[in-house]
Amino acid sequence: MGEGTEGKVVIIDGQGFYKVIDLRAAKTVGLPSGHIEAHVLMQVGEGNSFELKGKKYYLLPCDLYDYIMNYLKRRTQIVYPKEAGYILLKLNLGPGKKVGEGGTGSGALTIIFSRAVGPKGHVYTYERREDLINLIKKNYEEVQEFDNITLHNQLIEDGVRERDLDAFFLDLKEPWLVFEEVYKALKPGGHLGLIVPTLNQISRVIKNLELNNFYIAEALEIMLRNYKLNADRLRPEDVMVGHTGYLVFARKLLT
Amino acid sequence: MGEGTEGKVVIIDGQGFYKVIDLRAAKTVGLPSGHIEAHVLMQVGEGNSFELKGKKYYLLPCDLYDYIMNYLKRRTQIVYPKEAGYILLKLNLGPGKKVGEGGTGSGALTIIFSRAVGPKGHVYTYERREDLINLIKKNYEEVQEFDNITLHNQLIEDGVRERDLDAFFLDLKEPWLVFEEVYKALKPGGHLGLIVPTLNQISRVIKNLELNNFYIAEALEIMLRNYKLNADRLRPEDVMVGHTGYLVFARKLLT
Amino acid sequence: MGEGTEGKVVIIDGQGFYKVIDLRAAKTVGLPSGHIEAHVLMQVGEGNSFELKGKKYYLLPCDLYDYIMNYLKRRTQIVYPKEAGYILLKLNLGPGKKVGEGGTGSGALTIIFSRAVGPKGHVYTYERREDLINLIKKNYEEVQEFDNITLHNQLIEDGVRERDLDAFFLDLKEPWLVFEEVYKALKPGGHLGLIVPTLNQISRVIKNLELNNFYIAEALEIMLRNYKLNADRLRPEDVMVGHTGYLVFARKLLT
Amino acid sequence: MGEGTEGKVVIIDGQGFYKVIDLRAAKTVGLPSGHIEAHVLMQVGEGNSFELKGKKYYLLPCDLYDYIMNYLKRRTQIVYPKEAGYILLKLNLGPGKKVGEGGTGSGALTIIFSRAVGPKGHVYTYERREDLINLIKKNYEEVQEFDNITLHNQLIEDGVRERDLDAFFLDLKEPWLVFEEVYKALKPGGHLGLIVPTLNQISRVIKNLELNNFYIAEALEIMLRNYKLNADRLRPEDVMVGHTGYLVFARKLLT
Repeated sequence: MGEGTEGKVVIIDGQGFYKVIDLRAAKTVGLPSGHIEAHVLMQVGEGNSFELKGKKYYLLPCDLYDYIMNYLKRRTQIVYPKEAGYILLKLNLGPGKKVGEGGTGSGALTIIFSRAVGPKGHVYTYERREDLINLIKKNYEEVQEFDNITLHNQLIEDGVRERDLDAFFLDLKEPWLVFEEVYKALKPGGHLGLIVPTLNQISRVIKNLELNNFYIAEALEIMLRNYKLNADRLRPEDVMVGHTGYLVFARKLLT
Repeated sequence: MGEGTEGKVVIIDGQGFYKVIDLRAAKTVGLPSGHIEAHVLMQVGEGNSFELKGKKYYLLPCDLYDYIMNYLKRRTQIVYPKEAGYILLKLNLGPGKKVGEGGTGSGALTIIFSRAVGPKGHVYTYERREDLINLIKKNYEEVQEFDNITLHNQLIEDGVRERDLDAFFLDLKEPWLVFEEVYKALKPGGHLGLIVPTLNQISRVIKNLELNNFYIAEALEIMLRNYKLNADRLRPEDVMVGHTGYLVFARKLLT
Repeated sequence: MGEGTEGKVVIIDGQGFYKVIDLRAAKTVGLPSGHIEAHVLMQVGEGNSFELKGKKYYLLPCDLYDYIMNYLKRRTQIVYPKEAGYILLKLNLGPGKKVGEGGTGSGALTIIFSRAVGPKGHVYTYERREDLINLIKKNYEEVQEFDNITLHNQLIEDGVRERDLDAFFLDLKEPWLVFEEVYKALKPGGHLGLIVPTLNQISRVIKNLELNNFYIAEALEIMLRNYKLNADRLRPEDVMVGHTGYLVFARKLLT
Repeated sequence: MGEGTEGKVVIIDGQGFYKVIDLRAAKTVGLPSGHIEAHVLMQVGEGNSFELKGKKYYLLPCDLYDYIMNYLKRRTQIVYPKEAGYILLKLNLGPGKKVGEGGTGSGALTIIFSRAVGPKGHVYTYERREDLINLIKKNYEEVQEFDNITLHNQLIEDGVRERDLDAFFLDLKEPWLVFEEVYKALKPGGHLGLIVPTLNQISRVIKNLELNNFYIAEALEIMLRNYKLNADRLRPEDVMVGHTGYLVFARKLLT
């Protein structure tokens, strides 16, 4: 288990520059106005400013959002915060909950789940791709705050090992292939959430959830629109993310 | 402190009917096909079905999302889950964090914060309206899982009593009036989030955050679009929520 | 042929009241503050105000947009202006163009096409439902400015009678059934546009356009978001239309 | 006056390549698989295919939409089709209408208006920037179908020369400066439309329209979302235009 995002900081210049740095890993740090040694930055208190060649910067503590969006190494598409936050609420995750996940991907959501369920909860995450296992471990070990993640390197189709889970989240190409296994793993009334990028997949998801005795609560998409930070010329950014994925939420019914 | 959502259940019929009921408070429960006594429903296990006059229903455990969206008594506009989830991540809330809030309103976000920060964290919430205090207490006492909420019946302008908070969230008409007090209450690098319904307010927020030594991270809006649950005729709902509010996030810098 | 929207007027009160009235058809007109005789309103000049029981109103000429959105009798879903305007541009409609349409529905788009192609252009529109024919004729005869509409009461599958059309628009449940006939009717490079409400239909449309030697230019949806007209509290309307339909545009290729 | 888009063609390869070419201006044309002489392409019929080094292409007639989006030289932000089509309908433009415009910019909307009002209508367009005048003329002369455009190289503030216009459209930084002049130029009940990029401008527009005796019909924004053309993996494009501008529409009232 790591020590959270400790040691990592965010450097900003208030004019758009934004960088996450692990001060314990770096020797020198490249900034817009030049290079600075990491050990000098370690002396800068959180929230404080420093100058480099006449230019002012601020150093901020790196939090989980900064880490996931700007530092975490990805070899897969990750679930973004605009969806992740909503998922936490719809899956009813909080301290002490037990949640399953498949596939793990790069581990971004795993880390968010780990924090949400806290020291008395647990995350059981499944990833079949062997080549991702080391990346995932490196990613979550770097920032996890609680020793509450179990990573299985296997197909969910081959059997979920847990029972009575409060919730399960799926980020898989063919999530319907594992509905039967996930059903077995969930407690009655437990929550299933999933994300799929295409509408064809939603159709198959809906059909198969009904066949597998799930109550479908909703299918939706979340769009986030950023605004330019100019008080006198307020307007949305010219370009926005047009699509990440569709979310579907369901609950386990008894037959 | 309450016992969570225990005693409350969701009744669905799988055809659009959806109702949250407190079985300990109700004597009889009205359903589409007739009335049923609460003590009969108490015998139905979670996730199980029951029949009433030939019609099948399912009983599900009521979770926090169900409670807030469908049961909580409101006398103010609440912050919706599409925003609340994102707020959790942007404010970096997790077990052990200390977060301020003003105004409390009907307490929906207070309850979500209480769960997120868990037994070792704390929520300090400010509401100046005396007429809301009892409602707020009733609302959160009914479902809170941890004894971690302090409710102040006062204006934030009159002084935030806490120091070194990890984050603060504002849902006020004129949030800029309290930036100075909130600044004092936050730890360096601490997170400030706020929601305002109009664009004129964003302009004033941006100007005043800069004056008060905050780094503005982003201003944005979140749109949620529901889809009809028909696999063969997949399409968005005809009507959607066009607007709830704009979110702004910032961090405290030291001078 | 009618005389355009002549005789029809819009009455507003500047506080949200908005009504389209045919002064030649009405005897008395009901307004928020009482009733007024139509012949009195005929004396009010366009753009002018009048009073009724102490309340001020304005009378405006009714234009095509007012007529279609607020007066035209509908027995089907119509194509809305947010889509209709874009369709005009994508189908390259202008004076002198010849355009096909199927099905006619209530005739809203037919009227818009009729104006766009002008006295030297022509609209050939197909509607199989006999019960709509009288409604359609009544609708367009009331406002059409040019004698340029031919209405066929038949299935397009039974054969499009025209050749060398510049463009064709389809608002049908199964538009793919008529791609072969529409292909024959279009000139080389001619434009095909269509609207469908569901995503399953887009999939079938894409597959069948490719099979029928069309180049698919784009598939899209258009969202319109209204703002409240309050300069000091600027914000979008609380509720918006979540979905009307998806548009697909294509062009005829020679084999 | 030009001869429409004659001489210009679109070359596509059905795999994403799309290029507008003026065959009378080019000598050779660069395509993904090599170069081809323009006079060879002139022999290819519209809608027909040709091969170049084993690769198949199609040649399509260039229409106004293709010309504006892919060929017209711009030195300013243009009004896009998603807005332009809606503007046509809201301003009630059709054959014979007389419409004012300011500023002309690069002339994209001028060309669209010219076509919409046809040979019996007229477009009066104002552009104060002398350096744009030649560009504008070159742009519209290349494709205009009717001799119906009058270009004034002057500030609208210095006086609109026309009277009894059916409609006026403004694409100016401070449109409120010319409301008085535009009011004089419009007929009673006439339509005013305008586009502004920021929300601060909408506030000023609303205030000043009311002061100048206009009835404000609506303020809105139009969002266009493209879908990937894959029938089996249907989903929106990853990136979309987040913002172009806000539209406001109003009508002239008599005092």
